[in-house]
Amino acid sequence: MDPRYRLVISCPDRMGIVAMVSNFISSHGGSIGDAQQHSDSNSGWFFMRYEVTAGNGPFSLDQMREAFEPIAQSFNMTWRMEDSSKPKRVMLMASREAHCLADLLYRYHAKELQCEIPCVVSNHDDLRSMVEWHGIPYHHIPVDRDDKATSFAKVRQVVEEHEIDTIVLARYMQILPPDLCGDFANRVINIHHSFLPSFAGARPYHQAHERGVKLIGATCHYVTQDLDAGPIIDQDVIRISHTDEIEDMVRLGRDAEKSVLARGLRWHLQDRILVHGNKTVVFN
Amino acid sequence: MDPRYRLVISCPDRMGIVAMVSNFISSHGGSIGDAQQHSDSNSGWFFMRYEVTAGNGPFSLDQMREAFEPIAQSFNMTWRMEDSSKPKRVMLMASREAHCLADLLYRYHAKELQCEIPCVVSNHDDLRSMVEWHGIPYHHIPVDRDDKATSFAKVRQVVEEHEIDTIVLARYMQILPPDLCGDFANRVINIHHSFLPSFAGARPYHQAHERGVKLIGATCHYVTQDLDAGPIIDQDVIRISHTDEIEDMVRLGRDAEKSVLARGLRWHLQDRILVHGNKTVVFN
Amino acid sequence: MDPRYRLVISCPDRMGIVAMVSNFISSHGGSIGDAQQHSDSNSGWFFMRYEVTAGNGPFSLDQMREAFEPIAQSFNMTWRMEDSSKPKRVMLMASREAHCLADLLYRYHAKELQCEIPCVVSNHDDLRSMVEWHGIPYHHIPVDRDDKATSFAKVRQVVEEHEIDTIVLARYMQILPPDLCGDFANRVINIHHSFLPSFAGARPYHQAHERGVKLIGATCHYVTQDLDAGPIIDQDVIRISHTDEIEDMVRLGRDAEKSVLARGLRWHLQDRILVHGNKTVVFN
Amino acid sequence: MDPRYRLVISCPDRMGIVAMVSNFISSHGGSIGDAQQHSDSNSGWFFMRYEVTAGNGPFSLDQMREAFEPIAQSFNMTWRMEDSSKPKRVMLMASREAHCLADLLYRYHAKELQCEIPCVVSNHDDLRSMVEWHGIPYHHIPVDRDDKATSFAKVRQVVEEHEIDTIVLARYMQILPPDLCGDFANRVINIHHSFLPSFAGARPYHQAHERGVKLIGATCHYVTQDLDAGPIIDQDVIRISHTDEIEDMVRLGRDAEKSVLARGLRWHLQDRILVHGNKTVVFN
Repeated sequence: MDPRYRLVISCPDRMGIVAMVSNFISSHGGSIGDAQQHSDSNSGWFFMRYEVTAGNGPFSLDQMREAFEPIAQSFNMTWRMEDSSKPKRVMLMASREAHCLADLLYRYHAKELQCEIPCVVSNHDDLRSMVEWHGIPYHHIPVDRDDKATSFAKVRQVVEEHEIDTIVLARYMQILPPDLCGDFANRVINIHHSFLPSFAGARPYHQAHERGVKLIGATCHYVTQDLDAGPIIDQDVIRISHTDEIEDMVRLGRDAEKSVLARGLRWHLQDRILVHGNKTVVFN
Repeated sequence: MDPRYRLVISCPDRMGIVAMVSNFISSHGGSIGDAQQHSDSNSGWFFMRYEVTAGNGPFSLDQMREAFEPIAQSFNMTWRMEDSSKPKRVMLMASREAHCLADLLYRYHAKELQCEIPCVVSNHDDLRSMVEWHGIPYHHIPVDRDDKATSFAKVRQVVEEHEIDTIVLARYMQILPPDLCGDFANRVINIHHSFLPSFAGARPYHQAHERGVKLIGATCHYVTQDLDAGPIIDQDVIRISHTDEIEDMVRLGRDAEKSVLARGLRWHLQDRILVHGNKTVVFN
Repeated sequence: MDPRYRLVISCPDRMGIVAMVSNFISSHGGSIGDAQQHSDSNSGWFFMRYEVTAGNGPFSLDQMREAFEPIAQSFNMTWRMEDSSKPKRVMLMASREAHCLADLLYRYHAKELQCEIPCVVSNHDDLRSMVEWHGIPYHHIPVDRDDKATSFAKVRQVVEEHEIDTIVLARYMQILPPDLCGDFANRVINIHHSFLPSFAGARPYHQAHERGVKLIGATCHYVTQDLDAGPIIDQDVIRISHTDEIEDMVRLGRDAEKSVLARGLRWHLQDRILVHGNKTVVFN
Repeated sequence: MDPRYRLVISCPDRMGIVAMVSNFISSHGGSIGDAQQHSDSNSGWFFMRYEVTAGNGPFSLDQMREAFEPIAQSFNMTWRMEDSSKPKRVMLMASREAHCLADLLYRYHAKELQCEIPCVVSNHDDLRSMVEWHGIPYHHIPVDRDDKATSFAKVRQVVEEHEIDTIVLARYMQILPPDLCGDFANRVINIHHSFLPSFAGARPYHQAHERGVKLIGATCHYVTQDLDAGPIIDQDVIRISHTDEIEDMVRLGRDAEKSVLARGLRWHLQDRILVHGNKTVVFN
């Protein structure tokens, strides 16, 4: 099969972007398959995602990137050109709750997620057996309330050792330090167990029960330094009724959490998510 | 057809309630059809709703009510016994936005809603023609910012004149005075154009657009003196994407608003909603 | 505002289509905004839809079309270039059931649908008053079982008189003659009150009730000469329960019918639907 | 905690059932908590489900059953009185596809499902390791096309050995023999990977892709001797688009299959499903 790559671009909207980009691809032997473009009239910003089959041209992906750089600069683009065949390296982080981790591991096992998962990190040891059954190394890094710096230095070491691209907080329940958030901007995905912005922070199902809502939700977002306030990737809800106690809401909510997180991660792995300001464009 | 009524009860949970109530009904010639009971273990409260076919017994509904009173007292019940064949009298209030009003009038016209709508009140004159086409009197009562008391005295007069049971705020956009809310506790239904408690107050779609949510919602609730904070009856959401500008959200949200309000009103008209504290039990 | 148009293309997939098309647009002073492309690996077919702002170039839309024709031929394209500012002319056809017609008229009135509705045709006279309230001419053309040809000749005459582009069967309940279907291929939209292919033909809610399904649905499709078998545009479902009798299913189903039809029509009016074989590509 | 049981009844509708039953419970020291009754006007049948707290009375569940028998007979009831604390014994059957099995095992592990799973049976050996990680015996019973009787005799033996109440076909892909279906009437649950009655039989996703539907579904039903035609317990759908190939439909459909099967099994385990004719009443 011919090599394939994905070209993802955000830039100020201007005439001629599409012609310029598609000529570049065509003149380098590429063929554009699925593609999406969005022009945001509010912000004056333009977004595009192209799936390109490279053809049997003489150009490597690195050469393509180099050749594209001047165009990108002239249009003031934020861009990336990603090898479709190269899976991202994802580190999962969990705490004691198994459901999101188990779901992602199952999907990974079933080849639903195009990525590599070189390791799982948890601040507890509870989920080790499940992870190791999948043949994935499990790093138990407890988080000491009085010395988080040391704990997260260890996390950082694991990240580097495994050459991690993307971190998924699969109900990790700990706040990452600002430097890690910063270095992995738009590459740390969290699942929050409420329909944000409702019920941010702790114990969202208790908050939801107290308020008497009729739908509970889950929100998948990129992590920023503001708790539960990063760019939203996806959300979903599940209907509840007066018969559902908090423990039922927790149980029902798990299904929303699992599916929303898996969907968000999938889009991320396929370079379908473009962040602009505190919002996402999702070309799905 | 035999007369039918609905018996709706909330009370502290205790042994023997069902036997006592069902014996009462049976000994008065009634037959219980659809029924629902819920025992809330948190609050220790018990809720029930019975649909009863009265049989050809000698008892009028008023006699039934009188006979039931001692039982109700002994169990400390909040209760009502409603004639299923007697439609409630509903006053619709709207402002300039037509969609919820048009939807309810259509459903009324199509006999989807078992009620009478003796009048519509609006603080603008825009929707008169639509209402009058349905043969319903339209009261234009402007709300003077500096003299709301006079305006709402007129509203109150219309309410009394038409012997209104239930008030529906179909995007009325004005805050009812506390005395009216109090007198019509659990009988004023509002539709709010967000998924409460997110985006309470003004311009919820603008707030939602600003935050970059992926679902927008609507919430139908009973009105209390706290703005957008009353007991929630029903909620629903609609998926949006990055291509949806505020005006698209407004348009898409209308459909959620219409269906949620119509559903909530329908349940209210069928005495399916029991309020306890700031929450609802909905036997649907 | 600069003139805008939509370019919609289906053709065999080949290298260079995008470059060729985007160069054409760019060299004629156009700027591409929202765009979507899909390459179907099964059929080897390519689909695209571009929203183009024409810029203040010297080219009229007709000149653009003429200039584009050679490119289209060389790629064996099925294509159209539509003036975004020119609303399509839509004829609604209904029978006795009001809900879909009322919903579309409401949305038209609320400017949710970018089209003109020069007339409504019905085989009954029941809905005249509602239509005429909207200021739209109502043609009552009864369908004589023994002489359908005469009836549909009259329908055809109305179609021609009003220069109709698109016909919407808003629960029309009559089968259009093959010649009309043929002449308006992919321009007659029907709403069927089931989740096709389940329960095609007559009385789908009765069939659904008989089978005991837990969701009922509605399907919007282009009409072909095979009853209820044309290309599906959109579908949706509504949850029901054992308490719902056929009349409840009819009532609940109406809401699905209304929203599915309105959505399908909206996409059609925006040239978002491309038909290939018996399937649709919907760029929404 | 006081012992609890569930009383589930179907019978011809008659006056006095509720009073008779609730008196019986009350006079035997029981207290009725959550309850639902449905009177089906079409069939003239009555359905009820009571959750009863037994109180500290002198009656065992067997004594209660014995005492209730005469009442049941006089009303011609189909009924059961089930100990809420006694989990049903469920045998899972699977083939090669892991998703439904993995999902149920996860939920079992997470104590979402109140049951015991004493064994898993499969006609292939692929899923052994996953099952055994959960500490559950795995019986590999190949099905010989030319001698199914022997294979199913072995299945039957496992069923008897483990005192199985309920069989779940978690994508088992084999047809159970009529005698097993008969002996386990309304106790064999199957998940079919389509929105029945559409696409019954083999390769439903291929059928759905061919037809170009816009939603795919899953159906959970009790198994009868007619393939994919038994009483439907629950159904759900997932939206797809033109970009989804068959393999995407298979992947997306899995999520619907998992959630529908888990929900259906949960209701079954809680005695919430009453079968009447070829339909279910689900008191959820």
